[in-house]
Amino acid sequence: MCNVSASTVSNILNGKPNVGEATRQRVLEVVRETGYQPNYYASNMRRRSTRTISIIAEDLGQFSTVPILEAALACCEERDYRTVIMNLRMYDKWKDTWYNDETKLLNTLTPVLNELLSIKVDGVIYIAGHGRMIKCLPKDFALPTVIAYASSENNCFPSVILEDEQGGYEMMNYLTSMGHKRIGIVAGMADNVHTAKRLLGCQKALFEAGIPYNPEWTKYGDWERTSGYICTRELVKNGVTAIWCMNDMMAGGAYDYAHEHGLRIGKDLSIAGYDNRQIAEFFYPRLTTNELPLAQIGKTAAQILLKALHEPVGDDVEQTAKETEDNLVMIGGKMIIGDSVCRLE
Amino acid sequence: MCNVSASTVSNILNGKPNVGEATRQRVLEVVRETGYQPNYYASNMRRRSTRTISIIAEDLGQFSTVPILEAALACCEERDYRTVIMNLRMYDKWKDTWYNDETKLLNTLTPVLNELLSIKVDGVIYIAGHGRMIKCLPKDFALPTVIAYASSENNCFPSVILEDEQGGYEMMNYLTSMGHKRIGIVAGMADNVHTAKRLLGCQKALFEAGIPYNPEWTKYGDWERTSGYICTRELVKNGVTAIWCMNDMMAGGAYDYAHEHGLRIGKDLSIAGYDNRQIAEFFYPRLTTNELPLAQIGKTAAQILLKALHEPVGDDVEQTAKETEDNLVMIGGKMIIGDSVCRLE
Repeated sequence: MCNVSASTVSNILNGKPNVGEATRQRVLEVVRETGYQPNYYASNMRRRSTRTISIIAEDLGQFSTVPILEAALACCEERDYRTVIMNLRMYDKWKDTWYNDETKLLNTLTPVLNELLSIKVDGVIYIAGHGRMIKCLPKDFALPTVIAYASSENNCFPSVILEDEQGGYEMMNYLTSMGHKRIGIVAGMADNVHTAKRLLGCQKALFEAGIPYNPEWTKYGDWERTSGYICTRELVKNGVTAIWCMNDMMAGGAYDYAHEHGLRIGKDLSIAGYDNRQIAEFFYPRLTTNELPLAQIGKTAAQILLKALHEPVGDDVEQTAKETEDNLVMIGGKMIIGDSVCRLE
Repeated sequence: MCNVSASTVSNILNGKPNVGEATRQRVLEVVRETGYQPNYYASNMRRRSTRTISIIAEDLGQFSTVPILEAALACCEERDYRTVIMNLRMYDKWKDTWYNDETKLLNTLTPVLNELLSIKVDGVIYIAGHGRMIKCLPKDFALPTVIAYASSENNCFPSVILEDEQGGYEMMNYLTSMGHKRIGIVAGMADNVHTAKRLLGCQKALFEAGIPYNPEWTKYGDWERTSGYICTRELVKNGVTAIWCMNDMMAGGAYDYAHEHGLRIGKDLSIAGYDNRQIAEFFYPRLTTNELPLAQIGKTAAQILLKALHEPVGDDVEQTAKETEDNLVMIGGKMIIGDSVCRLE
């Protein structure tokens, strides 16, 4: 009806450029008049792949999720995959009451997985809201699946996680290199995998520097600002000269304490954080912290999935990350040096 | 095969609670063994509605988008709609070079719209990344569609937007009520709809307070931190006692200037922002700002869509927002009083 090839029509309907405006208008008019609807999933059944990847997020509201997601999407789109995003909204629905209640997660996830099988996506990237071992994915799940920001039981799914131990090591190494010996730690929750690994890295760095590790100077917070304030009060009483908070939110609480008690940050008291969230850029003085490699985690997860789908991908995986075991890739962060840690003479 | 009713199987596969664990396990085992796949879309064709709503985001990385999105999702899920999210990644791909280039948006959006028609969702919520008039949606688009955070040409799609004029009015009203008469404004980009309306509200409040409006004290930034710094430098030279920045990022730049020049914020210089982003909570002293009603915008957009789909929804729309014209709902923000504005005697 339009006197153009089927592929031209396809290009126009898929929004590809390089089609003359007059042709485009003519084809779109015929499409409108006839009410033609391409059935992607029908046409995909023929060629068996839908060239669609689904990304499941435990919660898009977590600060770490969207940067991972956007990098993964970019990688998929570069290889002409369409993407569909599912948001479980676990934190939004359940706050922090679902971490140890696998039923809540299963009840939310199961219909989503069924839907993905039904619309026949090619593969799945699962973005966890916080680092832990994921058990909710059925071991025999029929679609190629990669986990980002968490790992799976027995590493049965390829996973890309933070290199937390190295991060803790580098931070403590920096603080000791600045001459600090009495260093307090505001840790995250005690049963959290990020907490445990970062602390281990700290202890290694202290040992190498010949500084005895004092467990009394490690206080456990809950990742929130107020707990940073409370732990800082304890640590200052204990006479520390520097405090490392295992995230920027708790470092915000440490700043609050310092402001309130007239302690000059980066002079009377040194404070460091972790994550390099946007808030850290607005702390005054600028917070010293460790930037999470979120975009790299997303990109690497997508590359692993695309490889599994037999797409040619570069060697970036090898260049940016270290594969520690089969199926587990760890990626390290980057120290961001602000003005919140002074050199002790 | 399971000796249970079809609806019990359906409940289990859809993750509904209130099914005995033994039954659940038995059914899931049979499902696994037989490889049974419910075909949602096939079953939906029968009942004509898929009970699926798609949410298209111009970019999930915009700070305003996820709060709108999560509130909309919550509202849809309450009525047992499934949701599918599409992310156009416009800022991630094109930075700020796409605002006046409708082709870029069209090329990205067209295949997404086609896909939604193909999988037969019931309706669409389109979340804009910044406020403006949206032209990219075809006027005769076949699915019920509501726009959040922007409006459409001739209001052909129902839209829910910020009540910006009222916001500007309230902010200026607050500053004059604190005794300020020489008030500088760090505006957003001059061709932006938020900028124009907030400025208009300001001028009305100044007029009511009997304070002449001095256009020399309105400087145009670009919403970014550095422009806040530069405009603040000019305004301080002009001898203003208070500065209102039209977003929190630029207020961050105003803080930078004050810190650098030894001006005590909330004493020597008063500063206010807009948006109440998370960063604002970490400014020291706490920033006075205006909180965007993002969750309400998302919820209202979803309610309007559900109404169009003949779902019973409450009267919340009327209670929380004002309908200014057919198809256009505006929602106002809320003043957040921090410690960054002093009372002038």
